[in-house]
Amino acid sequence: MTETDYMQLAIEEAKKAAEAGEVPVGAVVVYRDKIIGKGRNTRENDLDISGHAEIKALQMAAKALGRWSLEGCRLYVTLEPCLMCAGAILQSRVSSLCFGAKDAKEGAIVSKHHVYDGEKGAPLLSFGVAEEACAELLTTFFSKQRNR
Amino acid sequence: MTETDYMQLAIEEAKKAAEAGEVPVGAVVVYRDKIIGKGRNTRENDLDISGHAEIKALQMAAKALGRWSLEGCRLYVTLEPCLMCAGAILQSRVSSLCFGAKDAKEGAIVSKHHVYDGEKGAPLLSFGVAEEACAELLTTFFSKQRNR
Repeated sequence: MTETDYMQLAIEEAKKAAEAGEVPVGAVVVYRDKIIGKGRNTRENDLDISGHAEIKALQMAAKALGRWSLEGCRLYVTLEPCLMCAGAILQSRVSSLCFGAKDAKEGAIVSKHHVYDGEKGAPLLSFGVAEEACAELLTTFFSKQRNR
Repeated sequence: MTETDYMQLAIEEAKKAAEAGEVPVGAVVVYRDKIIGKGRNTRENDLDISGHAEIKALQMAAKALGRWSLEGCRLYVTLEPCLMCAGAILQSRVSSLCFGAKDAKEGAIVSKHHVYDGEKGAPLLSFGVAEEACAELLTTFFSKQRNR
């Protein structure tokens, strides 16, 4: 599977979030070419500020491996992580991070903050994979919300 | 109750973490002078990187209030929040943050990072409350671990 294939799975998670009335962001964790974690936004339904896609996917992956350290794992997420998730990703020691769309408002990696700059423990980074599809999910969601 | 009294309750949470073999950090959330959230580190036992004291306390407070937004609440935590928790605190919209000891290695507020600088949504900040007691918990814990 390619980066785009994995991102497509993250997009599927984001779509499920939208169906549940949540901001559509999705994530998957890959280990040795297997999906071991999936997550999507659940904040509104769970009343939980930590219910972001990345954290949910990292939690599921940790349970699957039986350890909190996710060295050797790759995380794919449709949107640039916020500060909380950028920090959670560091805590998890995940080896690489690939995100789709940038987040000008809250993005902590290349947009609003640059918290991995000079950070030894930061994951390998790539972004812009399926960027348009990832961004369009959000545009559509917020446009529908405004029209209500 | 004073700031020091609330911090003392956070210290009690930190002590429970140490008893469970976890890095001793504790937190409480106060709303209208009532404790509505308590939390302590649970990472090792729960295999969950998001199991930091602040996030646990914020989650409990949100359940108590029936909303994820914690406007009007105050968070007390024994140690300067890491990036993940600094971000979670922002997400929660908690009104004020008081921490005890600084964290030179991972502190995201005044030590390693300064993520609230220029941030409109940042909570009111105070620190250094019961600083020595908060720091000593950690020194003692790590010193015991080294001696094992």
